[in-house]
Amino acid sequence: MQKLKSDLCKFVKDRNWQNYHSPKNLAMALSVEVAELVEIFQWLTEDESYRIASKAFIELKDEIGDVQIYLTMLADKFNLNPIDEANAKLKKNKKKYPVMDNQFNKFL
Amino acid sequence: MQKLKSDLCKFVKDRNWQNYHSPKNLAMALSVEVAELVEIFQWLTEDESYRIASKAFIELKDEIGDVQIYLTMLADKFNLNPIDEANAKLKKNKKKYPVMDNQFNKFL
Amino acid sequence: MQKLKSDLCKFVKDRNWQNYHSPKNLAMALSVEVAELVEIFQWLTEDESYRIASKAFIELKDEIGDVQIYLTMLADKFNLNPIDEANAKLKKNKKKYPVMDNQFNKFL
Amino acid sequence: MQKLKSDLCKFVKDRNWQNYHSPKNLAMALSVEVAELVEIFQWLTEDESYRIASKAFIELKDEIGDVQIYLTMLADKFNLNPIDEANAKLKKNKKKYPVMDNQFNKFL
Repeated sequence: MQKLKSDLCKFVKDRNWQNYHSPKNLAMALSVEVAELVEIFQWLTEDESYRIASKAFIELKDEIGDVQIYLTMLADKFNLNPIDEANAKLKKNKKKYPVMDNQFNKFL
Repeated sequence: MQKLKSDLCKFVKDRNWQNYHSPKNLAMALSVEVAELVEIFQWLTEDESYRIASKAFIELKDEIGDVQIYLTMLADKFNLNPIDEANAKLKKNKKKYPVMDNQFNKFL
Repeated sequence: MQKLKSDLCKFVKDRNWQNYHSPKNLAMALSVEVAELVEIFQWLTEDESYRIASKAFIELKDEIGDVQIYLTMLADKFNLNPIDEANAKLKKNKKKYPVMDNQFNKFL
Repeated sequence: MQKLKSDLCKFVKDRNWQNYHSPKNLAMALSVEVAELVEIFQWLTEDESYRIASKAFIELKDEIGDVQIYLTMLADKFNLNPIDEANAKLKKNKKKYPVMDNQFNKFL
């Protein structure tokens, strides 16, 4: 992640794109990339969505890459590491949705 | 990333949520989380978006975490690592947008 | 539609919100409202999505209203009427996807 | 709006696309079309977003049409008219954000 961060930073600087990359704009760009991911699955059933065709798979890889790129650049504007934030959020979610309830539900 | 992946996998299994997590549904959930990120910035100017208030900052951290979580879970359905895909996509982008042009532009 | 347009225009002016309503910001707000619509359906199967619960139905009505509101305000910035644009686009789509092919497909 | 609704209904039936058009799928497709609208504005400043180029304007018209089309089709699955819902939501918003406060703010 550190390497990706610095590679992205260099990529943007080399092209003089910093001024376009306000957090507001990066959030917009992120949402556009995610929609391109959604587009791959929109007319598939849930079952079909597990086994996408090889052409769509290449697109899927590209779009996952793009989403990670914009997420990393946006987080970097605030000195955040998205993996660290994911770990922190997962910890919160564990408290919010305790396993107990679900184990109990299994008996009902 | 490997640890996040296995932690997420355990989290989902412990709660019996696998059936909800088709790639189609994960893509939808990802788009909803990204919109919550966009919401933080929607009425701010680009300048303001660099310096968000401390309450919004906590929200920002949570939403960045959520986006990374869903992206990781979606990628994992296809045995993909989003960081690897980001590196591969960055490589493609470097070819697509060569630095030469931009350096040349500087002289115009 | 004309009445909705002028009602929205008055609503925004009365609250002095014009400055926030750049086309860029309205497009962002539109995407956030659409995500709130998507959220209603994200964990439902396609079958379940036809018969949503009454609480979710009230939410659905609100979110459809919000999406129409932001779409109308955005279109109005360019003196466009979204219904007219829908009719024009439908005409284009009819040419792009002729019925013939599909009728033919039925015989295969 | 009534005419648009019945035209869309016929368009879909003629092409045998009904099975793809679950509310869940239509909500996804709506979000993808909105992202194509957002894409037009993502790298523009707020000022620039008021005066988009003529090529982007044609795209804007198409995307506004697409968003209205999917919104109408989704609403129709629940016998809703998006214009009616917009009027109802505007009424709610007027109560939620009374003008009084803002008039008062003007004196501060």
